[in-house]
Amino acid sequence: MRLNPVFCAKSIGRMLEYYSQFNPSPLSIKQFIDFGLNATERTSFNFLRQELPVRLANIMAEIHLLPEYLLSMPSSKMVHGWYERSFLEILDFQKSDSNDPAVLNTFVETLIKIRNRHSSVVETMAQGVIELKESRDVDAVTENSIQYFLDRFYMSRISIRMLINQHTLLFGGELNGGQSNIGSIDTKCNLVHVIHDAFENARFLCEQYYLASPDLIIRGVDGNEPTQLHLVYVPSHLYHIFFELFKNSLRAVVEHLGSGESYLIFEYFTPVLYLDVYLSCSSVGTTEFPPIEVRISVGKEDICIMVSDLGGGIPRSSSDLLFAYTYSTAPQPSPSGSGSAPLAGYGYGLPLSRLYARYFRGDLLVTSMEGYGTNALVYLKALTSEANELLPIFNKASSKNYEGSVQTSDWSVPGQFSTNLRYF
Amino acid sequence: MRLNPVFCAKSIGRMLEYYSQFNPSPLSIKQFIDFGLNATERTSFNFLRQELPVRLANIMAEIHLLPEYLLSMPSSKMVHGWYERSFLEILDFQKSDSNDPAVLNTFVETLIKIRNRHSSVVETMAQGVIELKESRDVDAVTENSIQYFLDRFYMSRISIRMLINQHTLLFGGELNGGQSNIGSIDTKCNLVHVIHDAFENARFLCEQYYLASPDLIIRGVDGNEPTQLHLVYVPSHLYHIFFELFKNSLRAVVEHLGSGESYLIFEYFTPVLYLDVYLSCSSVGTTEFPPIEVRISVGKEDICIMVSDLGGGIPRSSSDLLFAYTYSTAPQPSPSGSGSAPLAGYGYGLPLSRLYARYFRGDLLVTSMEGYGTNALVYLKALTSEANELLPIFNKASSKNYEGSVQTSDWSVPGQFSTNLRYF
Repeated sequence: MRLNPVFCAKSIGRMLEYYSQFNPSPLSIKQFIDFGLNATERTSFNFLRQELPVRLANIMAEIHLLPEYLLSMPSSKMVHGWYERSFLEILDFQKSDSNDPAVLNTFVETLIKIRNRHSSVVETMAQGVIELKESRDVDAVTENSIQYFLDRFYMSRISIRMLINQHTLLFGGELNGGQSNIGSIDTKCNLVHVIHDAFENARFLCEQYYLASPDLIIRGVDGNEPTQLHLVYVPSHLYHIFFELFKNSLRAVVEHLGSGESYLIFEYFTPVLYLDVYLSCSSVGTTEFPPIEVRISVGKEDICIMVSDLGGGIPRSSSDLLFAYTYSTAPQPSPSGSGSAPLAGYGYGLPLSRLYARYFRGDLLVTSMEGYGTNALVYLKALTSEANELLPIFNKASSKNYEGSVQTSDWSVPGQFSTNLRYF
Repeated sequence: MRLNPVFCAKSIGRMLEYYSQFNPSPLSIKQFIDFGLNATERTSFNFLRQELPVRLANIMAEIHLLPEYLLSMPSSKMVHGWYERSFLEILDFQKSDSNDPAVLNTFVETLIKIRNRHSSVVETMAQGVIELKESRDVDAVTENSIQYFLDRFYMSRISIRMLINQHTLLFGGELNGGQSNIGSIDTKCNLVHVIHDAFENARFLCEQYYLASPDLIIRGVDGNEPTQLHLVYVPSHLYHIFFELFKNSLRAVVEHLGSGESYLIFEYFTPVLYLDVYLSCSSVGTTEFPPIEVRISVGKEDICIMVSDLGGGIPRSSSDLLFAYTYSTAPQPSPSGSGSAPLAGYGYGLPLSRLYARYFRGDLLVTSMEGYGTNALVYLKALTSEANELLPIFNKASSKNYEGSVQTSDWSVPGQFSTNLRYF
């Protein structure tokens, strides 16, 4: 089916319906690179003026399936308005002449305007969910629809910003990062540098709030810090992931072990950790805490990074909630931001980090040992050709998830007895 | 709805339909204990002659939903026959006088006969699946139904054997294990002893096959071996879990590092591991391999046991298959058993171990770092009152899983482009 402007109806409703019929076109990091090296601004323009409306329409179609009372929240309304406006602004270019340099310049300006307009989408949408929960009791079924939607909504946003950034960085004369950058992708991204940056900034917050913090130890498979490990990736995505993981680990370690009873801490030292701490003491300065340890391995399929802390872990019942948008182990920030814990936000850190990991077909897993510590495992595709965008698609399968039917369990519920079938 | 024999129709079909209407009654370890301490053989008889047919009927109803060509395999037919026969044998007791000691004795004999009849169900059903795969190509949808069914079928079997064992051990004059045993449950189960037993037996197989093996190190939260940690559990279930985990870890470590090139091995030694190996060498004897490490923590909700090896891990694409009944990293054993790798069977080790962990509401997770190693995490409920049987229930929700409809994905597929939407 060709995208023929003649088909396009005037009303936004019909335009949305039209563009939501198309599946988004996922790109691999390799394709982003090849394109950045070879393609012209005109090619990019022609791709984006069709792909962006398709990605916007696919997610907006799902917004319309959300419960009316969520959409009616002030913040949700605002976000919805931004999307409609940006959708129309890009459609304005459907008939423009891609050979006219003025058109191309206006397009870049429009993209930047859109990117700025949407900069606070995450917080605003989060606020909408809080408004909803304050205004009424939200049942489990609705919680699931919201969780399902937000995962797809934020993933769609990550992908749209990726496309916009590539175009504005490559053709908009914006600063391009280092020489090894192609748009927002660093073709020589030093993983260990990013991890150190993320840790130091998370540690700064930790020191500010707790006046203490554990050290960091990074190990490759051979036990040494793999300082020369480079990958082709978007450094800001990696930074986001590790900054969040370190904030969680730092908070857990300090709050779990920072009771001032040093014997308590030593209980948590294995000879191994004692050695680590001794080493890190000598290099970084004295610390009371067992260090946060990062382990990196490079496989044929994936680069795996494990972040381990001895922060006492969390019970299994809570780990189910770690990736829930409606849950945070830290106090909710007040809208004004006052009184919020500096190491915690809306509790979106982990779910968003997992989206950044999954965006290019990686993943983020968290396993915890209650009373001991937590391991977070980050997977990144080793091959740029396999690092394909993961994009939500609007279709019958996705629509089903908003119908909100209650599922009866096909496994037993504790204490559930058939009539007159009792042990006593 | 009361279980009234008058309702019971003659034909097995109608009996199955009748009993499959009732939900199985899950019991907690606490209930098993209380019952073992206080109840009479007659109470147990009255419970089992109703509960066993219910559990059998619930799973047999699902057997009937399996693809005809799977049921028609010789091995599957055999298993199906065993279930029908055992079902009828228990129904024979519906009208018997529970005050007649002779009846109670016959019941015990019948239970033992049934337990023996079903002793090879796992291997026989596995053989049925192999027969199926050899006789035709099995599509992904059918694979999913089989996976779904076998998880429930084997879980049902675990629960039925648990009920039978409790009755025959408590009232059948069978040997009851130690003084601390109540039926098959050890009220003072020493976790570390079970782990050592499982390791030593797995290591024996490893030594036989590879003429070498790594050592074991067990650590509690304080870094020392928690020798005095007792729990209330079924030791045989724990043994099964850890024996399987250790077989996998031993094989992985020896095959990954046992290339004879010692430098290769030392590459995998972190200073930490080197220390461990040094310690374990001096205690257990010289070894070339980094030890398998077990870490135990006790939380309010769960007892967590992590088994870590440096066996090089597996790629993420394979970890999805670890729990698939139709997949094994080791060569399939030939029906005769000859030429089969001693550390591998039908590839059922991990999926069955996860069922044993989940049976009393625990769990088993496996995370792997390709090129480095694997962590297996076992959770066991800390409270006997929360350790409730997890039992499959036959209802509309479960039936749906056998309808075999192909799901369209609601996320993008790599390289999938809308017509004429291309980067180039």
